[in-house]
Amino acid sequence: MTETVLTSANREVRIGFERPFVVIGERINPTGRTALAAEMVRGDYSRVEADAIAQIQAGAHMLDVNAGVPLADEPRMLADVVRLVQTLTDAPLSIDSSIVAALEAGLAVYEGKALVNSVTGEEERLESVLPLVKRHGAAVVAISNDESGISENPDVRFEVAKKIVERASDHGIAREDVVVDPLVMPIGAINAAGRQVVHIVRRLREELGVNSTCGASNVSFGLPNRNGINSAFLTMAIGAGLTSAIANPMHAEVMQAVRAADVMMGHDPDCANWIRTYRQPTAARPERGRNGRRQRRRSAVA
Amino acid sequence: MTETVLTSANREVRIGFERPFVVIGERINPTGRTALAAEMVRGDYSRVEADAIAQIQAGAHMLDVNAGVPLADEPRMLADVVRLVQTLTDAPLSIDSSIVAALEAGLAVYEGKALVNSVTGEEERLESVLPLVKRHGAAVVAISNDESGISENPDVRFEVAKKIVERASDHGIAREDVVVDPLVMPIGAINAAGRQVVHIVRRLREELGVNSTCGASNVSFGLPNRNGINSAFLTMAIGAGLTSAIANPMHAEVMQAVRAADVMMGHDPDCANWIRTYRQPTAARPERGRNGRRQRRRSAVA
Repeated sequence: MTETVLTSANREVRIGFERPFVVIGERINPTGRTALAAEMVRGDYSRVEADAIAQIQAGAHMLDVNAGVPLADEPRMLADVVRLVQTLTDAPLSIDSSIVAALEAGLAVYEGKALVNSVTGEEERLESVLPLVKRHGAAVVAISNDESGISENPDVRFEVAKKIVERASDHGIAREDVVVDPLVMPIGAINAAGRQVVHIVRRLREELGVNSTCGASNVSFGLPNRNGINSAFLTMAIGAGLTSAIANPMHAEVMQAVRAADVMMGHDPDCANWIRTYRQPTAARPERGRNGRRQRRRSAVA
Repeated sequence: MTETVLTSANREVRIGFERPFVVIGERINPTGRTALAAEMVRGDYSRVEADAIAQIQAGAHMLDVNAGVPLADEPRMLADVVRLVQTLTDAPLSIDSSIVAALEAGLAVYEGKALVNSVTGEEERLESVLPLVKRHGAAVVAISNDESGISENPDVRFEVAKKIVERASDHGIAREDVVVDPLVMPIGAINAAGRQVVHIVRRLREELGVNSTCGASNVSFGLPNRNGINSAFLTMAIGAGLTSAIANPMHAEVMQAVRAADVMMGHDPDCANWIRTYRQPTAARPERGRNGRRQRRRSAVA
């Protein structure tokens, strides 16, 4: 059975077909967050700290960390953030950059087995990222586009994913350490985007036997009530075989959809997690803290 | 392509794989509603009237009508309710009873092609309900249990459904006029209930080519936050091929899940219905009235 094992110094998370769905918190990312970007450049990581704690309290199983501010010293910043976040949580990290030197700097200070986000099917990316992943014993997100761009045909995207899995194998990276991102299109622009993802995720599971992940909120780009669309997308994709997503756990509606999908898939034995989370009918619901104890969400960071 | 056509005097609703999901409002049913039952017995149908209007305003495409009060004159009451509801809405009706004489009385006063709810795989039911369905040119809900009860094995339930479809054919009822209910078990008791439904619904679609329906709220029996579970159940089942459900449209969360699932399936062209429904970010959202005009939900009946 394909299981992608990610670790921190003290904790292990497994992504797999017979496991609860894994939510990778997306908030530590300055893209489109001007205030955060400015703070990070001047070395103020207070918002990163708050985002890390809040996401874990909201139920994220892993955190994505990105320090991509144009013209800034991204390798140094990413290393700083990876170092800092490890002191705040023992959730494993996804180290996220389009700059290989930044991935390298982040991996150098990471204790455990990280998820490298990401490699594409482009020749130059494959040959620069895969050796790095292998050297650090990490896992990697494989994004199913290549030099020709992103195909609208999901079967072409599947073939790109297959190529990356094979190339990773050539570099000594096992199939279970490649988590494929099938690329989710905005459904407001491409009406078939939902069915495409269901189709490719099913093929990834049945034919390639690999885990999958995606940026879940892209599907609702440009639409009103985005959380409603994102929740349905995740539920349907989990039904088809999606095993993780990079998402915003601060949206209670999206986390509820993930927990309910776990129940539907039979991955929440006796519905224990569901009952624990929702048995209090009041608005203030307990979240599981990072030590496994139930805590009230801290209003300072929620 | 399998399409189940239901009509009232003035409107047609189609259940089908390439159609938006059909919600059959479940509220006009005295089972477990003591006040409604007492009112119906003394001929007071004011609550039925309010329920009919409110469900249509909330987005139901059809209405189920049931007048099953123990020891009461169910055939007369069901005929009364069918007659009344037809004056309030032109949504097609599902005529719901376990008593054949009541189904007959309801069908006798119905103008259009009704959905008869239901027949099972039990020999006596097949031979009493199917001729009635044929005589009135109706469609029928086929519940996948028989003399041996409800199997926990979804493949056995599939075989029962297949038998009913074949027997209906012997009676001259076309495959597209049989809508199979795969029977949804409470997931709090049977952990695999969600996967069972996904499995059987996919087989119903791919092997038998029939439409499907179910009582959607049964899945969450005994659990907290039932709408959260029901929403995920419907979304995942729609992804697998479920084409209609008997549900409570008064739960905004459930209707949102259905609309989002339509978007995901590519059954809401340009996301037009989604955008129309949710573009106002305030709590008071417009619902489509029965004449297709947008109306504010009337607080008196909502």
